[in-house]
Amino acid sequence: MMDQHKAFDLDANPASITRRFQTAVMLRALKMGGDPRLALELDCGKDGWVRVARHEGDLPSIRFHDNGALFALFRNPSLRFGELYSSGRITVKGDLTQLMEALYRGLEHAQNNPRGLISLYRRLSSDLPTANTLNRSRSNVHKHYDIGNDFYGLWLDRDYQQYTCAYFANPTMSLEDAQQAKLDLVCRKLALRAGETVVEAGGGWGGLARYLARTYGVSVRSYNISTRQIEYARERAAREGLDHLIEYVEDDYRNIQGTYDVFVSVGMLEHVGLRQYRAVGETIDRCLKEGGRGLIHSIGQRKPRRLNPWIEQQIFPGAYAPSLKQMMEIFEPVSLEVVDVENLRSHYALTLKHWGENFDRNADVVKGMFGENFVRAWRLYLRGSQAAFTAGGLQLYQVLFARAESRAIPPTRDRLFTDRQ
Amino acid sequence: MMDQHKAFDLDANPASITRRFQTAVMLRALKMGGDPRLALELDCGKDGWVRVARHEGDLPSIRFHDNGALFALFRNPSLRFGELYSSGRITVKGDLTQLMEALYRGLEHAQNNPRGLISLYRRLSSDLPTANTLNRSRSNVHKHYDIGNDFYGLWLDRDYQQYTCAYFANPTMSLEDAQQAKLDLVCRKLALRAGETVVEAGGGWGGLARYLARTYGVSVRSYNISTRQIEYARERAAREGLDHLIEYVEDDYRNIQGTYDVFVSVGMLEHVGLRQYRAVGETIDRCLKEGGRGLIHSIGQRKPRRLNPWIEQQIFPGAYAPSLKQMMEIFEPVSLEVVDVENLRSHYALTLKHWGENFDRNADVVKGMFGENFVRAWRLYLRGSQAAFTAGGLQLYQVLFARAESRAIPPTRDRLFTDRQ
Repeated sequence: MMDQHKAFDLDANPASITRRFQTAVMLRALKMGGDPRLALELDCGKDGWVRVARHEGDLPSIRFHDNGALFALFRNPSLRFGELYSSGRITVKGDLTQLMEALYRGLEHAQNNPRGLISLYRRLSSDLPTANTLNRSRSNVHKHYDIGNDFYGLWLDRDYQQYTCAYFANPTMSLEDAQQAKLDLVCRKLALRAGETVVEAGGGWGGLARYLARTYGVSVRSYNISTRQIEYARERAAREGLDHLIEYVEDDYRNIQGTYDVFVSVGMLEHVGLRQYRAVGETIDRCLKEGGRGLIHSIGQRKPRRLNPWIEQQIFPGAYAPSLKQMMEIFEPVSLEVVDVENLRSHYALTLKHWGENFDRNADVVKGMFGENFVRAWRLYLRGSQAAFTAGGLQLYQVLFARAESRAIPPTRDRLFTDRQ
Repeated sequence: MMDQHKAFDLDANPASITRRFQTAVMLRALKMGGDPRLALELDCGKDGWVRVARHEGDLPSIRFHDNGALFALFRNPSLRFGELYSSGRITVKGDLTQLMEALYRGLEHAQNNPRGLISLYRRLSSDLPTANTLNRSRSNVHKHYDIGNDFYGLWLDRDYQQYTCAYFANPTMSLEDAQQAKLDLVCRKLALRAGETVVEAGGGWGGLARYLARTYGVSVRSYNISTRQIEYARERAAREGLDHLIEYVEDDYRNIQGTYDVFVSVGMLEHVGLRQYRAVGETIDRCLKEGGRGLIHSIGQRKPRRLNPWIEQQIFPGAYAPSLKQMMEIFEPVSLEVVDVENLRSHYALTLKHWGENFDRNADVVKGMFGENFVRAWRLYLRGSQAAFTAGGLQLYQVLFARAESRAIPPTRDRLFTDRQ
């Protein structure tokens, strides 16, 4: 690292008190952020740009297009960064993903030094997210998933429209193949047999239910509270001749009726909120037959903390990503046995890379649909999430569980790799 | 289930008030134990045996050889059963493992009905075990592992003397093959490379260290506080020409010095005690190189509760089997990432079956070494543990973890099944 006093060039007038203050603020921000490998640049109008960095070399930089943007960020970085980037008052020079990774690595480092921004960050992190009542859940989910099926169709995989982590059996797989591999991995873990009954909590656009019905010959009841997703899912299942095996129900997971051999939930727990985990466990306990088993696939975190507040407010209202310890609140109170946990973190970084590239290819279409600020917000969300899975402590846990008396899951994992008959 | 009032035969005089009282006590015990599929029989001297059951058919039975044994058991069943069985005042007619499974299944059922014996059981369960200071750890471990290497040699596998769960790639594997398969599974999960350094916490008789050095060409420093085990391990490593790669250190895991690529601990956490988990995490964090990874293999439980008090007092002083949630106390505070969790519960039941059979074949030798009560105590411990892994909520967790920045563990599990070069 460069010496602090030599660490910046003043292209602008070095005598100016204002410039010195702005420079000091930017240096302090870098220091408190754990000395990330990035530069800060401030537009000083006729004086040109002030640039500050604490590392040598060709670094990506955050550019502040006005003085107010710098101070707004400083006051509440984890919330304001997203807002300022979306509105264009902050831009990024260089690779956005690389910059976000540098930010996350810095913060990881800075957490051993809990002062200033970091103590603020910690204070925010200690607040529990709000409780998701049935009504609030519906409103939250509406906000995110009912933006429009066409929009998601622009950048998700075509075959199964999976808005969850794919499984790259090898890193060069296409997104389509990797999403299908994920669906099959879930089915193999569950050791499904034809004729069994499956209940799904949070069915998205219905892709897993179609895969289950078509490939494994099971019958599926799939619960979802997103009206637009349910419409899409029903139409597509009918078109593919699978509607005799699948029932899409527009209702909350807490209202699941009946009993089933298998419970499965891929990418819903993030929206459930920590306070509802006991309800999730009780729901599973109520709807699983004797000898039943299940799988929950969810974003998690290495240790408990709140999601980035901008993501929580603007992208995923009501969302929370649990630590593995917190996920156990679902299973232990109802004596469900955890059989297998796999952390697919690096697979989610790769999935998001594909989504980000697809999104960028279609940015003009999205701009036509929702405007420039929306494009910037979603670009930041996708690239920032990719960086958070690479360097920011986000995890992807697949938890396979079973009733204690279940004999359905074989004692070894061979089934995950040997060819299916 | 039979009607309660017709559920017993009185071979003895039905008019006797004492008999009626004894019978009522036995019926109550069965009921509070969750109506297990077993019979209770009481020796009434010249009146013969009173038998009580609440299920039909050919059931195993617990036989009380005196009236005092019945009432002693009733007062504190989870502690007294082991004592009374060891002293011969209780015997078992029929298969001991089957009887213990019936007891565990009953208790599982009874826990929805927290009264009497069960509330006592729960009260006991809520006490936290005592803290294991360095001195107490040494005394606890001495008590169990220093009984004598010859004794364990009578019933453990010959090749690696593994006193931990084996891995049965198929259920007909020999114990020797299954223990070797376990060692290899651990190494594959860790994705070891020749020349790396490994630190082991709780090395037993040195078998894993020998396997690591011989098969993977890594160098191992192995910590253990059992004097007799260390002696055995050193002598055997020298005899097999591996002592240039292995250093056995007689010291506590908390005193581990140096930094390593890999941390491994198979079957030590059970002895560590819940209150020390933060110390375990801090020890790992201190001794793992940047990019390091590790594995902890430990007995666990489906939900938090104390071990059976007889086991805790007589067999494993200071022992505790954590729930998976409790194990996370090791990793989350120091930001270690959980990569993979496998529950090998059924493999431990099978391992214990092998041990129990080996033990029974050598029961006369053990009797010559330690007497009849010791034989009974250990038979109950081995068969009872087998039943507890089958039906009593005991689990076996292998937790693979890594520093966040580690790239050593591949993103898929293929390595666990493809042939090694």
